[in-house]
Formats: sequence, structure tokens, C-alpha cells
Amino acid sequence: MSQIRHALNVKREDDFAKWYQEVIAAADLAEESGVRGCMVIKPWGYGIWERVQRLMDDRIKAAGISNAYFPLFIPLANFTREAEHVEGFAKEMAVVTHHRLIADGKGGLIPDPDAKLEEPLVVRPTSETIIGDAMARWVQSWRDLPLMLNQWANVVRWEMRTRMFLRTSEFLWQEGHTAHENREDALSETHRALEMYRACAEEDLALPVIAGEKPENERFPGAVETWSIEAMMQDGKALQAGTSHYLGTNFAHAAGIQYQDREGAQQYCHTTSWGTSTRLIGGVIMTHGDDDGLRVPPRIAPHQVVILPMLRDRPEDGALLDYCEALRAELAAQWAMGEPVRVLLDKSPGKASAKRWDWVRKGAPVILEVGPRDMEGGKVAMLRRDAVWNMETGKPAMHFVARGEFTASAAALLEEIQRGLFEEARTRRDANITRGLASWDEVRSFFASNGKYPGWVEVEWAKPTGAALDAVVEKLKGEKLTIRNVPKDAQPPEGACLFTGDRAVERILVARAY
Amino acid sequence: MSQIRHALNVKREDDFAKWYQEVIAAADLAEESGVRGCMVIKPWGYGIWERVQRLMDDRIKAAGISNAYFPLFIPLANFTREAEHVEGFAKEMAVVTHHRLIADGKGGLIPDPDAKLEEPLVVRPTSETIIGDAMARWVQSWRDLPLMLNQWANVVRWEMRTRMFLRTSEFLWQEGHTAHENREDALSETHRALEMYRACAEEDLALPVIAGEKPENERFPGAVETWSIEAMMQDGKALQAGTSHYLGTNFAHAAGIQYQDREGAQQYCHTTSWGTSTRLIGGVIMTHGDDDGLRVPPRIAPHQVVILPMLRDRPEDGALLDYCEALRAELAAQWAMGEPVRVLLDKSPGKASAKRWDWVRKGAPVILEVGPRDMEGGKVAMLRRDAVWNMETGKPAMHFVARGEFTASAAALLEEIQRGLFEEARTRRDANITRGLASWDEVRSFFASNGKYPGWVEVEWAKPTGAALDAVVEKLKGEKLTIRNVPKDAQPPEGACLFTGDRAVERILVARAY
Repeated sequence: MSQIRHALNVKREDDFAKWYQEVIAAADLAEESGVRGCMVIKPWGYGIWERVQRLMDDRIKAAGISNAYFPLFIPLANFTREAEHVEGFAKEMAVVTHHRLIADGKGGLIPDPDAKLEEPLVVRPTSETIIGDAMARWVQSWRDLPLMLNQWANVVRWEMRTRMFLRTSEFLWQEGHTAHENREDALSETHRALEMYRACAEEDLALPVIAGEKPENERFPGAVETWSIEAMMQDGKALQAGTSHYLGTNFAHAAGIQYQDREGAQQYCHTTSWGTSTRLIGGVIMTHGDDDGLRVPPRIAPHQVVILPMLRDRPEDGALLDYCEALRAELAAQWAMGEPVRVLLDKSPGKASAKRWDWVRKGAPVILEVGPRDMEGGKVAMLRRDAVWNMETGKPAMHFVARGEFTASAAALLEEIQRGLFEEARTRRDANITRGLASWDEVRSFFASNGKYPGWVEVEWAKPTGAALDAVVEKLKGEKLTIRNVPKDAQPPEGACLFTGDRAVERILVARAY
Repeated sequence: MSQIRHALNVKREDDFAKWYQEVIAAADLAEESGVRGCMVIKPWGYGIWERVQRLMDDRIKAAGISNAYFPLFIPLANFTREAEHVEGFAKEMAVVTHHRLIADGKGGLIPDPDAKLEEPLVVRPTSETIIGDAMARWVQSWRDLPLMLNQWANVVRWEMRTRMFLRTSEFLWQEGHTAHENREDALSETHRALEMYRACAEEDLALPVIAGEKPENERFPGAVETWSIEAMMQDGKALQAGTSHYLGTNFAHAAGIQYQDREGAQQYCHTTSWGTSTRLIGGVIMTHGDDDGLRVPPRIAPHQVVILPMLRDRPEDGALLDYCEALRAELAAQWAMGEPVRVLLDKSPGKASAKRWDWVRKGAPVILEVGPRDMEGGKVAMLRRDAVWNMETGKPAMHFVARGEFTASAAALLEEIQRGLFEEARTRRDANITRGLASWDEVRSFFASNGKYPGWVEVEWAKPTGAALDAVVEKLKGEKLTIRNVPKDAQPPEGACLFTGDRAVERILVARAY
């Protein structure tokens, strides 16, 4: 078996964090902006985000939820009236204090002391409080409920240690906000949103996830229940990929969201909120990337098929381009997974062989190379991104396929790649969840002795609260572990709580996390 | 002829500004947020913006331009290095000075004095300088050019007097930014973007516009040439609906955007930028609104056909809903103007007759009412939003049409409404451009004597510069007039400059403006 020369310098198994940075650069996804904590999302990275947005937005609209837009700036007073929320959030936020600049007399600019705001404004870290104000205006009667809104927006949480896509001061997200007549309806929406996230993660992004409830200590500030989907990265760490909160009447009390019920009495609404962000792209990288760069699942690939004509600055190039253009048009007329196939004819300068590796690093699902001989033979040379190497020869696994045959099978091929990426990730995830550890010592020694990428453990606990829970959290923290969630679909518990020895009431996932 | 009782309280001819506010409220487009200068864009208003975005984005992508995302915050230093730009912009901007809040000891919050930023950050008023930084990193050689980027984002310009959609402190827009090898390529892109805006305004939003160059005094800060599209509102005022700038090498010098040319020499890029915003929605309101509310052109209507079942809380409602659902599905399977027909079956509580007027005020292009008798007769009662009234009876002009006949003609009907709104606006616009005024006195008395809505005048001038131009601008300002642009397609001048008496070199549009 031949040695394979991978397209990246760093291998996942050698230094996962460094590999992550290299994929982002090599796949041209994003870069540091020079502005503290803010990144630039480059066209290929943003194109993936646009696909995620489109697919998520279709699901949001199909659920009868309307998009709307609320202010970037939130008055300070909004944060002080919901006690738990301010406790959780009123820390690291960007604060606008002035509305004008003036020259400093030394060639620079300073905030104008005469243009200080009476009340500083906070750049939104999330929009519960400002959307709550609007809900209070819009809801009068039970006839106005449910009120179901979503916003696509940028938010800012001042972060000291940032990592591209995973934790940046500014990030892009969608935030759903709904108001209901009662607990039951609001909880049902909380779970609908969670299931929507699961479906989008698994079907669109090919990210297998486990949906479950967060323990008390991990709740969103002001929430009564917080649910999440958790994905396993290739280093065995967990990534929280989306959250859905049942807020009870906490925010309704703070903002005065009341309605007249069917009997004429005034009631407070039960509200929910739920969000996913550009963090999902980080999850895609760390789940599907390999030592050659990114592999983008076809459903979220901006280009699913890239055609590279082998141009040579000769007169014959014209005919070759015509051939490739005809191929492009044929492919674009095919449908895969409910949409027209997205195909790019890449005519940019440079050799096809070099550009092949650019597209491998970027993770385009299928790369076609077409030279004069392929044209004469009515063929294409096809490289699947999910199977770049011929393991026997150590060379790229190019397949020579008749043009018509390729076109006819393109949709099935893309579906196969999408399914394959999901199955690969799910198999790996399932193989790396360890069950049956019966004591805290076993858990600790498991994480200590299982190398760099130990995965997750599923253990049973008695669901302690208050100080008892704090003690558990501290214990876990000592091993850099956290409780990810209480899986919805876990088996019922059978034994004793790992921490207290009491009878266990549920199972929890414990892991290191991003 | 009967008296018509319009759906709004204020008529356009009585108080246009007040009418504008009433349409925004009655059509449920937006409202004041309580945060200074920021509005809430409500679902129907945002749905229209989403349609504008989608159609504009398709045009942007078709031109080979990639979307990307750049930071919300811009360091102060970026503004000081391009002298003209800072002069034009470094005035009313939101400035972030702190990154943390702390309790003030009185139950409130204040910016933490210990968390003051070393260098304040400006909330982007536009992104030339920060995107210029990225371009400087990304461009090395002529092979990297043209570099063509677009961003969909929120921007903030602190405004003292705000008006919803037309002038708000925060607004939503797209900003295109491109870099080229030379002046010719950059100018050609400036004009491509301008033409794209014209086509989108006219074909999608049904807004007739005049494309032309802005005079020197109206140029974007730092631009060499600024071009605009100008639309006429129903009060005869002009609305600048989009701008496209050729920036020369000004921003390239400031940010260091250099490339190695085909001969190996270092050159500065020639750059462009171009933008359109949520202001376009203001233009749609003031162009297509009438005394019954908004009329949304079908191409940008979130729902093109709204079906209102006449429900009566009786068992027969089930059959009626089935009939309406079947009709909805039939209509949704039709295509109009290249897309599936967007149809809503409105099952919300309330009487169909009341909901009819809600949808008239919102401006849905076609409203169908279906009662039990219509169902039995296989008919629908159809109301066209562009012809709500039967002028002879003064009653709503309901048309009873066989269901199959309506479905078969729905696409043609929507196209007819789209074309009709454009033609109506163009006819009105053309009738309100006055030519042939030969002296400044004639212009002044024209605007003084032509009532509230005098429209525009097209006059000839010698294109003065510097102090001579300033004098013209001052003269116009005295009559609340501005030069809108030098129309691309105007006739060549024939006479003398209106202001200087010299031989005229071009024609300009003079108008009051938003």
C-alpha cells in the first residue's frame, strides 16, 4: 500500500486544533479580520452559510413562522428588569456610549464628548428583551396567539478567547421567539424547534446529533427548560449545535406580554426562544473534514459539481470550453435532493491539476476534469471528494466515465455522498459513546487513560439540584468535563447515581466540549 | 358616481407625509421600536424585503459576484486614513467604547470603567474601509482580479430626524465592493451595477427610475464618480433608490490594495462600491400606495393570492376548507414570472369581510373570497388590489369567476397587475417632468406656483465646478431643491446654462427629494 501525500500539512491525529485552523485557511472559509474577536467569512464559507440559511429558513417558514427584524441596539433598562437574564448576560457586551466622532487635533478621531448618549445602548447579545417589548405591543387577545417570529441577524458577545466559527465576538444566527397561551403550547413549540434543528443538522448538514435537555446549571439565563442538540467532533469533543428554550412566563412578566384569555381574564404568555448560528459551520468542519481539507455535504455545498477544463492556451481551448459548457448545462438541468444540481464551470486562470487540489481542500463533493482526449472520447475524469485516494496506488482515484452516464447518475451520486458522510459520522459517534461505567473513579480513569480523543460517556444520575448539583459540576470541571444533555431517547436508568449513589432517575452524556 | 369610502383615514392629496405613516401602520409593515432611530420591520414588511433580497441576490450572483461577511465593528484608524471619506462620514456614527456592564448599585447597569476599549470601535456606516483591508490581503496579482464581493448587512448612521424605511439610524442593505486592474474595468462594473439596479427597480419593484450621474457635490465621500437611480414618488419628490460609485484608486491607496500587473509592476487597484437598502420599501409605498393602503407588485409580494374562506363556525366549514385547500394547491402549482405562484390560505380567526380589508390595506395583489355558495357553484369571488372599486356603484369590484378559469389565468393576471403598476407609475412620472424652462426665474416660479406636488424639471447647465457649483447648490437650496442626477439617456443640450448663461453641456434633473 502506497504512502499518501495529503493536501494539508497537519493531520487530525497530530494536532486537531492546528488542523482545524489549517482547514479554515486551506478551504478559504474565513480569516481573522484584524478587528478584535471578529472574523471575515470568505465567499466559500459564506456560501455554505447561505445554504444552511436557505434550508433552515424553508423549515422555519414551513412551520408557519414569520421572519421579522428588530433593532441592533438594546437600551440598558431592558437588561435590568429580568433578574436572571441580566445575571447571565450583563457581563461581556459591546456598549455604545457616543453618537459622534470629532478630530482629536493630532490627525486622529475621538468620540465627541458633546455627543454622549443619555442612556448607553448595548449591541444585542440576543433579542429576548427587545422582541418581548414588541410582543407586549402586538398581543392583546388569545386570538393573537400563538405569535411566532424568527430573526436572522448578527449578535455580539464580547469573548476573550475566540476561535473562528466556534466562538467569535460577532456571529451570525437565527433566533426564533414565540408566545403562547399556556405552558403546554409553549413546550410543544420548544420541542418542535428542537426537532427541526435535529432534522436540519442530520438531513442537511449530515451531522448526527443527540437531542436532550440541558441540566439546570446549563440553562439559558431566564429559561425554565433548555434543550440542545449535541454533535460529536472527530476529536471526541461535543459541540452544542443548537438550543431551544422554554422561558415560562419569566420574560412575559418582565416585558408585560399579556393577553385576554377565552374567558376574558388577563394572562401572561408563555414564551420560547431557539437559535442556531455560524457555529454550525465549525461543526461541519470538525465532523467532515479530513487530512485533505474540508468535505462539504452536497446539500449545503455551494457548488456540488465543479468542472475543470484542462486549458492550454491553444486554439483547441474553444472547443473544449464548449464541451464543458454543454456538460455544465446538462448537469444543471438535473435535480438532486429536491433542487437543481449546483454546478460550476471553473474557467479561472491556472492549471487544472492545481485547481483540482484547491477544490479538494474546499471540499466540493464531485470534481470533473475534462481534457481534449476526454472530449474526443465523450468522457469525463471524475474524482469523488469522499474517496480521493486509490489506496493501492496512493494516487488520486480518478474514474473515467462516459459523459451521458455521469449526467444520468449525478443525482444518485450526490445522494450517496450525502448519506455516506452522515453514516460515517454516525458510526464514529456511536463507537465513541461509552456506557456502563459504574463509578466516578471509572469515569475519571476512562478519560485519563483513553488518549487524546476519548469521546463521550453516558452515565446514570439522580438529577441533583442546588448545592448537590454544584458539587457534581465542580467535580466534572476538575476533569474538564461537562454534562452535555439528558438524551430524549436514552434507555431508562437501571442503577445508582454515579455521583451520589442514590437511585438514578435519568441518563446523562458527559464529555469535553467546545 | 358613488362616493367611495376608502380604507385609510388620510388621503394622499390631503397630507402625503401623514398618509405615508398611516400606510405603514395599516399595512402592518413596520413600527417605531422605542430605540432611538431604529424601527421594527414587521413580518409583512420584512417579507417584502426578503423578496427584494432574493431577486437582487439572484441578479448579483448571476453577475459572478460572491457574497461574504465582514465585521460590524470598524477601528477608528480605518476612518482617518482616507481623508475625503472621513470628512464625509466621521460625524454621526455609533461608537462602542466599553465591553462590559456592571451594576451601578442602584438596581441599574453602567458601562464598566475598567472595561474601556483601548481604541473605540465604530459601528459600520458602510464597509469600504474594512473590505479594503481584506482586499489588500487577498489581491496579489492581476490573476486575482477582478475581485467581486457583496455583503448583506445592517449599517448604522446616527440620524437626527428619522422616517421609517427612508431614514433610520440602523438600516438593512447590500453593499457591493469590487477591485479591478484599471479604470475602464472599474467603470464598466460601476455601470453594470447601475443597470442591475435599474432592472431590479423597474422589473421587480415596478419602480420607474432614471439612471444618471450625480453632480460633484452629491458624490459619495471619496468617490470619483457617483451614479444613481432616481424614482418619483406620488408627491412629485425624488427618491434616490440606489447608488453606484467609481472610487478610482482612492480607497486602494488608503488600504494598500495593490497588484502585480502583467508586466510585473506594482499597481493600485481601481475599486467600486454600490448599494441599495430597505429604503426601496419606502419607494414602493410612495409609488404604489393608494387611499386604501399599499399595493405590492406581484413579483415582490410575499403572498400573491390570498384565499379567504367564509367560515361560520359550522360543520360545513370542513368541506369549505377542503375546497379552499384544493384551490390553494392548484394555484401553488402554477408558475408566474418564472416562479411558483405564492398563495396563502388565510384560516386565521375573524370574518372574511374584515380580513378582506386587512389584505387590501396590506396590498396583496389578488384576494379570493370563497363561501358555501361559491363552492357549490365551483366559483371564487375575486378582488384585484389594483382595481378595488366599482366606480359606478362605489362598492368593491368583486368578480365571480369559475375556479378552473381563475387558476388557468392566474399567472397572466399577476403579470398584468405587475405591468399595470409599472405603467401607471411611469405615465405619472413622465407627466410630471417639465422641460423647456429657460431661466432660473421660470424654474423658481414653476415650483412656487405648481401646488404641493410640482414634480421634477429637466434643465440645461454648463456643469460648473468648485465655487460656481456651490453657488448653484445654494440657489437651489433656497427653494428646497437639489440636483438629482444627469440622466444617461437625456437629449443633448441645445441652449444656455440656466445658472450661468454659458453654453450648456448637459441636462440635469432638479427636484425636491427625500
